[in-house]
Formats: sequence, C-alpha cells, structure tokens
Amino acid sequence: MQLLKQKILNEAEVLPGNILKVDSFLNHQLDTMLLVEIGKAFANYFKQHNINKIVTIESSGIAAAVTTGIELKVPVVFARKQKSLTTHSDVYSAPAHSYTKQVTNEVIVKKQFILPTDQILIIDDFLAQGEATMALTKIIQQADANIVGIGIVIEKAFQDGGKKLRAAGYDLLSLARIKTISSPNQIIFED
Amino acid sequence: MQLLKQKILNEAEVLPGNILKVDSFLNHQLDTMLLVEIGKAFANYFKQHNINKIVTIESSGIAAAVTTGIELKVPVVFARKQKSLTTHSDVYSAPAHSYTKQVTNEVIVKKQFILPTDQILIIDDFLAQGEATMALTKIIQQADANIVGIGIVIEKAFQDGGKKLRAAGYDLLSLARIKTISSPNQIIFED
Repeated sequence: MQLLKQKILNEAEVLPGNILKVDSFLNHQLDTMLLVEIGKAFANYFKQHNINKIVTIESSGIAAAVTTGIELKVPVVFARKQKSLTTHSDVYSAPAHSYTKQVTNEVIVKKQFILPTDQILIIDDFLAQGEATMALTKIIQQADANIVGIGIVIEKAFQDGGKKLRAAGYDLLSLARIKTISSPNQIIFED
Repeated sequence: MQLLKQKILNEAEVLPGNILKVDSFLNHQLDTMLLVEIGKAFANYFKQHNINKIVTIESSGIAAAVTTGIELKVPVVFARKQKSLTTHSDVYSAPAHSYTKQVTNEVIVKKQFILPTDQILIIDDFLAQGEATMALTKIIQQADANIVGIGIVIEKAFQDGGKKLRAAGYDLLSLARIKTISSPNQIIFED
C-alpha cells in the first residue's frame, strides 16, 4: 500500500533493538484518513469471504479494526491484555510475550463474543514475532470459530511472525512488509 | 441520541456498585455502525469550531474518537494509561483514579502530539466521576492548547463528573445521560 509506505518513510523512527516507532500516525496519534484507506484495503482483499466479525487486540489494533469493520459492516471485538490471568470460566485466554517490553500478558476475550459459527478476520497494527497475533488465533480456536484471514498494517518481515503464521496456513495480508531497518532511519521494504 | 439509548436499554447490564456494562457494543465488542452514527452526532454538534485534533484515552475511547475524527477529517491522539509515572521530560501526564478498579493510573501523552495552536475536542466513552476526562483536560492545559468541547458517549448523570466539567465551563455533549440505574436492569435516562 503505497500511501502507507510513504508515510512510514516520512515519519517512522528507527530505534535501537530493531524498534520501529510509528507514533505519529498509528500507535499514539492516529491518521484517520490513512486508517480509512487501510480499512478499505483490508476489506477489499478479504471481502469474498463471509466475514461476520473482526477480532483485534487493544490498544493500537482498534483503529484499523474499526475502519475495516465499517467497510465490511461487521462488529469488532477487541481482546484485552492483562498482567495475570485471574481465572474466569467466562473468558478465552492465551499468553503473549512482548519482546519489546519483556513482559508476558494474558490476552482475553469474553466467551459470549466469539461463537462457533463466526467467520473471523483478525486485524492488528504490527506483526513482529507474532506473539499477539498467535494468541488471538488460539483464542478463536478455543471458541471453534473459523479464521478466514489475518490483516496486518506493518509486518517486520525480518522477524519470524509472518513466517510462522503463513506456515500455519493462514491467509495473511500485510499492507507494508519491511525487509530491513537500520539506524539512522534506513527502512527497506520487501518487493 | 435515540439509537444509542435503545441499544443501552436492550443490551446494557446493571451490576452491583452502580456499574453499567456495555461490553456488547462499546467496551469489548464494538458496534461499528452505531459508532459511525456516534461520530456523526459529535461532529455535527461541534463542527462550527475549527477543531484540528481529537484527544481520547485508551482503550474504549478510541473507536468513538476515530469515527468522529473521520467525520471531521482530523487526527486522533489517544492518551496512554500507565501504572506509575517513570518521569520523562517528553510527556505530559496527569493522574486519574478509577473508582471501579480502585487504581490510580498516570495518563500520558507525548508532548510532540499536542501543540499550543491546537483546537481540541475531547472524546470518551464514559463519564462517571470524571477522573479520566479531567486528566485529559489537565494534559491539554499543560500544552497550552485550547479545548473546544467534550463529547461523551454515556454519562452517568447521577455521579459528579458531568457537574464538575460543566462547572468548569466546558461545552459538554453526552449522547446518553443516565439519571438512575438499579438492579435488575432498570435504566432511566435524563429528559
């Protein structure tokens, strides 16, 4: 997605530890006009499936999930992150380790919001090691619902998440796939 | 807003401690079509001001802020909640106590995303004691930016937040103002 790649080149910051900061349009400030285009791109790619629900994870996934949900006219469920799992029989949960923050969160969704009949599109802002996205796939599998695809705004293709999800057979669309990043602010895309 | 009030009457749950759960359309699952209408209602009410930015707070405020931002064609900045403030000179911060969760969070926004020239609309999902919304007003004041108004999806008018914000002179629009709630599931609106 050219508009997104240009935005990344213009505004993303490369920080030590392979961190790519996109706070000015995706992770803290949200470029709503860009997010509408992101929603259209996901909706257009996945529209042939009978998607009836989008699942994402708080907080940065919500905006792209909402604009995609508006395009597809379906609701969004956002999973919550918690430090520890206080076991409840009414939630699905899976652990997700954050390599950036060096913490493991429990990712949870109330059981009533994912049904075995659901045809689900997963949307998230970033894909690096894939921990958060994998946790969402586990939760949806616990519910016996079907995952029709995964839409990612920015994939760090030099990390393993995309490889793992594609190997598991998921139809994964990343709108920007980054091949390498290096200081100062050198960003190279795949293709 | 009639559509919202009907949704509250149909789907909200009243829990002990004056808690109103709207997980099925606003706080966990998001009704994207309702959120588009919510965005239009806020945009319509505040459109005469030259708003150039919306400020909200993660996670549940993001969806309504994004649909309002799409209508007004302006970006959204979402404040982050942190357990404790690890002091950084590059952020504005203010504490906000959650009476529901009995924790005090630091609400933070990076300084670069609020400028003295900004004309800001604050959007949030809930207004009860007003702690989160007041924290956002403090952050924006620290930045010397102007707050043109505050849009709230659901105001618990039997708690003090709305009174405090109106007394402070803010133009506050709540799309549903709840006068009383009581078990089992009795919800009465203002007007």
